[in-house]
Amino acid sequence: MTHSYATHLSCPKCKNTYSIEGIHQLCSCGSPLLVRYDLAKAKSKVSKESLSGRESTLWRYHEFLPVLQKENVVSLGEGFTPITSLNRLGSSISLPSLFLKDEGLVPSGSFKARGAAVGISKAKELGVTELAMPTNGNAGAAWSLYAAKAGITAHIVMPVEAPEITRKEVLISGGRLYLINGLISDAGKTVAAFVQEHDCYDASTLKEPYRIEGKKTMGYEIAEQFNWSLPDVILYPTGGGVGLIGIYKAFRELLELGWLENDKLPRLVAVQSEGCAPIVKAHEAGESSSVFWENSQTKAFGINVPKALGDFLVLEAIAKTNGTAIAVSEADIEIYQRKVAQEEGQFICPEGAATIAAATKLRESNWISHDEQVLCLNTGMGIKYPETVLSKTIPTLEKGERIKEEYH
Amino acid sequence: MTHSYATHLSCPKCKNTYSIEGIHQLCSCGSPLLVRYDLAKAKSKVSKESLSGRESTLWRYHEFLPVLQKENVVSLGEGFTPITSLNRLGSSISLPSLFLKDEGLVPSGSFKARGAAVGISKAKELGVTELAMPTNGNAGAAWSLYAAKAGITAHIVMPVEAPEITRKEVLISGGRLYLINGLISDAGKTVAAFVQEHDCYDASTLKEPYRIEGKKTMGYEIAEQFNWSLPDVILYPTGGGVGLIGIYKAFRELLELGWLENDKLPRLVAVQSEGCAPIVKAHEAGESSSVFWENSQTKAFGINVPKALGDFLVLEAIAKTNGTAIAVSEADIEIYQRKVAQEEGQFICPEGAATIAAATKLRESNWISHDEQVLCLNTGMGIKYPETVLSKTIPTLEKGERIKEEYH
Repeated sequence: MTHSYATHLSCPKCKNTYSIEGIHQLCSCGSPLLVRYDLAKAKSKVSKESLSGRESTLWRYHEFLPVLQKENVVSLGEGFTPITSLNRLGSSISLPSLFLKDEGLVPSGSFKARGAAVGISKAKELGVTELAMPTNGNAGAAWSLYAAKAGITAHIVMPVEAPEITRKEVLISGGRLYLINGLISDAGKTVAAFVQEHDCYDASTLKEPYRIEGKKTMGYEIAEQFNWSLPDVILYPTGGGVGLIGIYKAFRELLELGWLENDKLPRLVAVQSEGCAPIVKAHEAGESSSVFWENSQTKAFGINVPKALGDFLVLEAIAKTNGTAIAVSEADIEIYQRKVAQEEGQFICPEGAATIAAATKLRESNWISHDEQVLCLNTGMGIKYPETVLSKTIPTLEKGERIKEEYH
Repeated sequence: MTHSYATHLSCPKCKNTYSIEGIHQLCSCGSPLLVRYDLAKAKSKVSKESLSGRESTLWRYHEFLPVLQKENVVSLGEGFTPITSLNRLGSSISLPSLFLKDEGLVPSGSFKARGAAVGISKAKELGVTELAMPTNGNAGAAWSLYAAKAGITAHIVMPVEAPEITRKEVLISGGRLYLINGLISDAGKTVAAFVQEHDCYDASTLKEPYRIEGKKTMGYEIAEQFNWSLPDVILYPTGGGVGLIGIYKAFRELLELGWLENDKLPRLVAVQSEGCAPIVKAHEAGESSSVFWENSQTKAFGINVPKALGDFLVLEAIAKTNGTAIAVSEADIEIYQRKVAQEEGQFICPEGAATIAAATKLRESNWISHDEQVLCLNTGMGIKYPETVLSKTIPTLEKGERIKEEYH
């Protein structure tokens, strides 16, 4: 049985192609590379019905992933995350068909595990023994853990302000951690210098072509979980944008495979914070790429990315699906994070909360209508950001003391 | 289609029975109650082959859960967690067939979500609107979240020393949180007084009969994931003991259903810390119940339970399966937590690490032999206990600064 139908890498800008077997980072033209598959052949060999009963991880789609030999797969059980129905909250914002895909339920508690699982598996297949990457925290944590499993040395550079728990994940798994007094863009420069000096694999976002393949499995899962009839709107918190690009790539592949019930793709929405909204600005101006966002700031740290290498791919995905880009306020992020916990029992991360806030705004402006099926992506667990929950005075009892009326 | 084959509650001590429809807490004799099913009828209606293709949550076993009406199910996508193979670590401790079931990959990041999902669903079915419970942190967090989803008010009492993140989970989901200067046993006394005064549902461990049913699904999953041929040894971190009792109950039900490939059950091992080992002490003395452990202390906070209500059931499960109980040192917990992260890429909790330390000891003493299949349970994510990872000096760079050789 063929484990993967991957055939080559291609450049979405200059159309140059590269082999899937050697190490390639960016195209010689400077653009990220994308993995291509022989989907015509796959279509004749693999049916969507055959998926039922496969393992409940992202590897159920192994034919459409770039790892050629099964024995190179490095897995911790990631993927096939649940989709919950947000009935109560949805009704209160006039969106009765509101759903949430919970990417907190993967190793390391963030969707970054998908990119790390596929990225590290492919790195192992390519013989990589040492890599470096900049991160806003969660990606570095995930890559450090999977690298440990694969026996690869990982150099991780993150801003001093990145969530503290992600430092601990890197440290305990033996990753080489460096902090930087700056943003992820500054970390990126340090990594660029390091990989050049050390001839080391560059695992920066989109500088290796495989992370996106892991993230695209969210799109395959959404299709399968919605029984191959996609929702009307999908909202995604957008920093580097790879999640959104990946989901769009998945849908295009599924169209080619003929697995979708109809040809209409969901309108894709890139959600950003008002404190860092370069994609929103570019989309509103009708530009095909974004401009570096000065002095960016947001508590949704994962989307504090002032300029994304794949910005043109995000803007294309939005445009081609009649989607949009929208920024939400820090106050709304906090409000909706609390609402989801109190009404739906899910402690989601600030980035995930931003998508709920965005859905509310888009419903208010009637960009989304009442009867549409709407899917928000929660990209990680709230417990990775304990500092986002305000402390309050908690009654403290001595042994034998009773709970007083005024406490509850 | 019958949603559940549950028929009644029965007392494992005095054999008294109760209806599954009203609210019942302990038996009049003081013992916990257990849920019973018409397994003979279920056997003729449900086949294990029919499970394939069902949703990948614990609700795939709904016929063997106590929720009678499907509409009462409160689910956040919990269960059907992955089992990973610990190849590298296993080889290094002469256990080539060492596996880990990762209970971190559920809502709230701990196996307590299983008990909360089934417990809250049944509480909803019974019309409960307010509940109270003592907790070492993780159970309270999970119950508070699921209670929020169900619209039930939850009063949660936890020791001041319980992991701080679990406080945040209770607060953000709107639970009523109280801290106590003492242990979970002290919290239990406060809850007992509160439920009596307020005529409120007591959700304390084993004082309601349904939490264990959620936890037993670990046993169903282990059987299905091992293709109905169970491993030789299962190690479980044991505080209140409900996880272990639940797994044993599951295996007995599966035997009755005729779903297992052979009648030999795994040897069950209760793992405790040297700082709190009442079950170990009772098992070694051949007793059928335990004695309160004075001045208990361990960094594996979830198993800091000086006297468990279900101790006699744990001891019975161990005895009937030719299992054992073993205590591990605090130093070993730390060592094996780090080893699992550095060699297997999984950041597990201290309680989970205790089971790996115990497997190592039992292999050294030859209680486990080289060729046996051994399954350890990791009951939660390491990120819920960030304080267990030692901080060290991390190199901090200024913008534009390069990574120096001496840093890596």
